[in-house]
Amino acid sequence: MADRFSFTLLATDGAARTGVIRTPRGEIRTPAFMPVGTAGTVKAMLPESVRATGADILLGNTYHLMLRPGAERIARLGGLHRFMNWDRPILTDSGGFQVMSLAELRKLTEDGVTFRSHIDGARHHLSPERSMEIQRLLGSDIVMCFDECPALPAPEAEVARAMRLSMRWAERSKAAFGDRPGQALFGIMQGGVTRELREESAEALKAIGFDGYAIGGLAVGEGQEAMFGVLDYAPALLPADRPRYLMGVGKPDDIVGAVLRGVDMMDCVLPTRSGRTGQAFTRRGVVNIRNARHAEDPRPLDEDCACPTCRGYSRAYLHHVFRAGEIIAAMLMTWHNLHYYQELMAGLREAIAAGRLAAFAAAFHARRAEGDIPPL
Amino acid sequence: MADRFSFTLLATDGAARTGVIRTPRGEIRTPAFMPVGTAGTVKAMLPESVRATGADILLGNTYHLMLRPGAERIARLGGLHRFMNWDRPILTDSGGFQVMSLAELRKLTEDGVTFRSHIDGARHHLSPERSMEIQRLLGSDIVMCFDECPALPAPEAEVARAMRLSMRWAERSKAAFGDRPGQALFGIMQGGVTRELREESAEALKAIGFDGYAIGGLAVGEGQEAMFGVLDYAPALLPADRPRYLMGVGKPDDIVGAVLRGVDMMDCVLPTRSGRTGQAFTRRGVVNIRNARHAEDPRPLDEDCACPTCRGYSRAYLHHVFRAGEIIAAMLMTWHNLHYYQELMAGLREAIAAGRLAAFAAAFHARRAEGDIPPL
Repeated sequence: MADRFSFTLLATDGAARTGVIRTPRGEIRTPAFMPVGTAGTVKAMLPESVRATGADILLGNTYHLMLRPGAERIARLGGLHRFMNWDRPILTDSGGFQVMSLAELRKLTEDGVTFRSHIDGARHHLSPERSMEIQRLLGSDIVMCFDECPALPAPEAEVARAMRLSMRWAERSKAAFGDRPGQALFGIMQGGVTRELREESAEALKAIGFDGYAIGGLAVGEGQEAMFGVLDYAPALLPADRPRYLMGVGKPDDIVGAVLRGVDMMDCVLPTRSGRTGQAFTRRGVVNIRNARHAEDPRPLDEDCACPTCRGYSRAYLHHVFRAGEIIAAMLMTWHNLHYYQELMAGLREAIAAGRLAAFAAAFHARRAEGDIPPL
Repeated sequence: MADRFSFTLLATDGAARTGVIRTPRGEIRTPAFMPVGTAGTVKAMLPESVRATGADILLGNTYHLMLRPGAERIARLGGLHRFMNWDRPILTDSGGFQVMSLAELRKLTEDGVTFRSHIDGARHHLSPERSMEIQRLLGSDIVMCFDECPALPAPEAEVARAMRLSMRWAERSKAAFGDRPGQALFGIMQGGVTRELREESAEALKAIGFDGYAIGGLAVGEGQEAMFGVLDYAPALLPADRPRYLMGVGKPDDIVGAVLRGVDMMDCVLPTRSGRTGQAFTRRGVVNIRNARHAEDPRPLDEDCACPTCRGYSRAYLHHVFRAGEIIAAMLMTWHNLHYYQELMAGLREAIAAGRLAAFAAAFHARRAEGDIPPL
């Protein structure tokens, strides 16, 4: 095990990169997809099952955990890793995004955000300093700067204001983070879909200096084309020797497109949330298991998938337990989706290492274009 | 593997017995507790996890499966074992109990019961012949006779009428079951808490002849004392060389009391249902994980338990995920409860084999009387 955080680039293919992040809690193979464990659990999965899908790192949500059960309580219980029974790396977000999308009665000032909990109405305050404190209490391996992330579309002046506030908060985050051996702090680039703002943000972050750099403010309503438009230039604005993390992305084709453009890390609730609503991701696109055409189909979700769901259960069974509201439906669908995502990441890593990413991406799109397995 | 159903008694201790039921799908160590997999899933558990708790056999509910997804559909999909990914023995009930407690607009005649589904209002008919057909379609290893089981307290004349109808239905069940190599048919004794009716029922069943005999019509409102009163004489009315199955029982102390009185098999939704509502069974009684006193308790549910829940998670974590409505709460609580039940059965089997069941039962009661681990 490494005694501190490092990033080693192993190979590149065009703008795409593959490498390894080393942390005291284990290695993270990049490009990496991080399943989301919002409230101390990747929903409907045991942590050993998450690991079995191939995940090297989880994401935890500062906003949810500070409200329930509370960061101080988690610290008294030995930190988030012990609390949730996951001994590998955890990245925590700063709470900045969720506080603006979930909390009530928000008041934003230069200092931070005052708000009421969406759970019990209790009053809370988040600032760069408090966010760093909470993430220290949680014991996360990768800590994110506190930022403000406006939803798009937004007036450019508003995007610029939020970006500049986020850069001042990034400086305060760095100061409050201090020196934490074994933990890393990532800065977050903002600036919406405006290149000049993205450039200004990248310069500000590099001047402060971080262990890694996130591309924030995307996947917030701008659409894939606009997102890829930013990703065509944004990764190259960041230091090549540090990991680049695209926050909150995404669908499988978003992931392939982002990796092609030089992104190293991603996270998204999509595989877990979609699993619970009956959507399965497969090599041939999305399967909605609620659909009556699956009611008597003896085949698995994906005939080429080696996950426990596809090895053990028919579409007919998944359709039945989903319709019956059984918990095993969420368990099996989530497991399959996380397995699919991690297998996609493994395929991307191998393709980059072999210098055949373009062919991999072409095959990925061709297979999806075939559509789901036709009914028997 | 055995090519047909058999029961071998290995040891007795007073009225209690330990043995092994052999079936083509595997052995069932008795006394056995059967987790309930109502709709093709033991709720919140993967089948391999159910097996890991030590379960040799599951119970499936004919009533639920005939309504959704339908017995003919399950047969077309290869039977219930393949459908739910459980290759060991399955016992199915006859549907008789659930149709009287769950279905709507029931009409009982000598032939059977006509009713409307509680799911979609569709009209269905169950009779001894149809129940045998459904259980054949499901492919269960142990098939139960179709019976009528009145809730207690009930007038003795009503209990007698239902018992005599059930005996006529038992004869029709046996005829409809025919010869099914590898599958077993169990008769069900009825008669409420009236000894003469129990004796009449036992004689009627023995005259027909079954592979095993269930004691039905208990755990339906009569209370533990009255139930034990029946169990003080009822098991001895049945053939000693066949397994005796007490249906729908029960709490841990019900199980110990039933085994002491000569019962070989039991089933109950209690460990699974209680897990989902936040109740954990431990050596020292029931722990209600919702209780605020667990909110910061770093200890497991039961410090002497080796289940994955107790090895990996604190009461504080279980309290948190239960309060947050996370699916993992049902998963972990259910796993612990099923593990506790199976460990209790293993302890009972060992104690009977060693001729020290009385001491085992005394220690069981003494430990429970201590109460839950005091708060830190």
